[in-house]
Amino acid sequence: MTYTLVLLRHGESEWNALNLFTGWVDVHLTDKGKAEGKRAGELLAEAGVLPDIVFTSLLRRAINTANFALDAADRHWIPVVRDWRLNERHYGALQGKNKAQIRDTYGDDQFMEWRRSYDTPPPPIAVDDEYSQAGDARYDGIQVPATECLKDVVDRLIPYWESTISKELTDGKTVLVAAHGNSLRALVKHLDGISDADISGLNIPTGIPLVYELDENLRPIGPGKYLDPEAAAAGAAAVANQGGK
Amino acid sequence: MTYTLVLLRHGESEWNALNLFTGWVDVHLTDKGKAEGKRAGELLAEAGVLPDIVFTSLLRRAINTANFALDAADRHWIPVVRDWRLNERHYGALQGKNKAQIRDTYGDDQFMEWRRSYDTPPPPIAVDDEYSQAGDARYDGIQVPATECLKDVVDRLIPYWESTISKELTDGKTVLVAAHGNSLRALVKHLDGISDADISGLNIPTGIPLVYELDENLRPIGPGKYLDPEAAAAGAAAVANQGGK
Repeated sequence: MTYTLVLLRHGESEWNALNLFTGWVDVHLTDKGKAEGKRAGELLAEAGVLPDIVFTSLLRRAINTANFALDAADRHWIPVVRDWRLNERHYGALQGKNKAQIRDTYGDDQFMEWRRSYDTPPPPIAVDDEYSQAGDARYDGIQVPATECLKDVVDRLIPYWESTISKELTDGKTVLVAAHGNSLRALVKHLDGISDADISGLNIPTGIPLVYELDENLRPIGPGKYLDPEAAAAGAAAVANQGGK
Repeated sequence: MTYTLVLLRHGESEWNALNLFTGWVDVHLTDKGKAEGKRAGELLAEAGVLPDIVFTSLLRRAINTANFALDAADRHWIPVVRDWRLNERHYGALQGKNKAQIRDTYGDDQFMEWRRSYDTPPPPIAVDDEYSQAGDARYDGIQVPATECLKDVVDRLIPYWESTISKELTDGKTVLVAAHGNSLRALVKHLDGISDADISGLNIPTGIPLVYELDENLRPIGPGKYLDPEAAAAGAAAVANQGGK
């Protein structure tokens, strides 16, 4: 018995297009991002990979990417679960800031540490900052972070993976997880057993389904496969180069 | 303690625009229908009626109307439940047929009996008809109907209302039900205690939230209120006149 897991990073958002750090700020997809969602659904349908349940973050760029993808794949009717644990990494005080400006101001080393260090979070955001999520009703009952490093994302996401997403897989369902660059990096790190040091080199492109076949212990049988490998390679390179001018 | 229930009929679909009987056929929204969904969300936000959970049918015109409405109301992140019991009435052999042609062929009396009789279903659809839902994966585990009258919809919907939707209301949640002309007529019949004879006169317009305040026994405290009463009156008249030439 093997299980099928599909990971999907949201399409281009308005702040991706503006080269801003986004994190938990709930920005809209661009028209290009909507088209990426639709294209992802067409790729799923062509490959015959049909999700039985979808998990999303609480952020509209992932939610709407899933909506467009599932509609295009004729799977819009499947059960939906949303959870904050799939949210993007909280980018702390960098939320709303221009990536190139931050790089110019703080230098390449600090910039890359904030973007890719496993356990160094950016400075915390103030609760009264316009881009803080303190007091947002969707997070009632949880402690909204003021900043997160990738390790923090692993620490909140993997228990949810083990308690909830895993159960749907071992029930035999094909599971779609529609989420974000860093929450998906956290999950891939866990699945592929990537070290804390090596995870910095992993970039996940937007809008291209990444399909894993998992064994009975939910360990990958082989490497995850992008349904459009050529576009995925180009997309990963583009992510790696963000913050350039 | 009172509870808030919001009913929302999907916006214009491609087959509404073509004047075809739709039923369980899973047609797309038109651009006008998408705009209706968005407008419904703006009305909810303006009125401060913010859903905590949404129920939809398994049909994309209701699902996508809810998606557009919730995104516009900034409530896209709430929990979602989909269930076939909220589906439109199955229109049997009429699915895919032009309303005006059916009226011409069978006469006004037969046409109105099929549209508005409480307990006379249209002729059943053949399982090999292109517009039958027999074998559709989304209905695995249920007996897909071959036709339904409004009474059949009441009989499938009200037990679900009582077992599932009611619980969310009595938990104190504002509940949005995004569904269809006849599944919402069935629910309004139950809520307002409308007789089998009188329900034929009730028409629910598309895309305008209908808000009920309910008491502890989930009985309406007053009449349901449309958030845009003028547009609702015009919309209800348009529904009543469907099948005209």
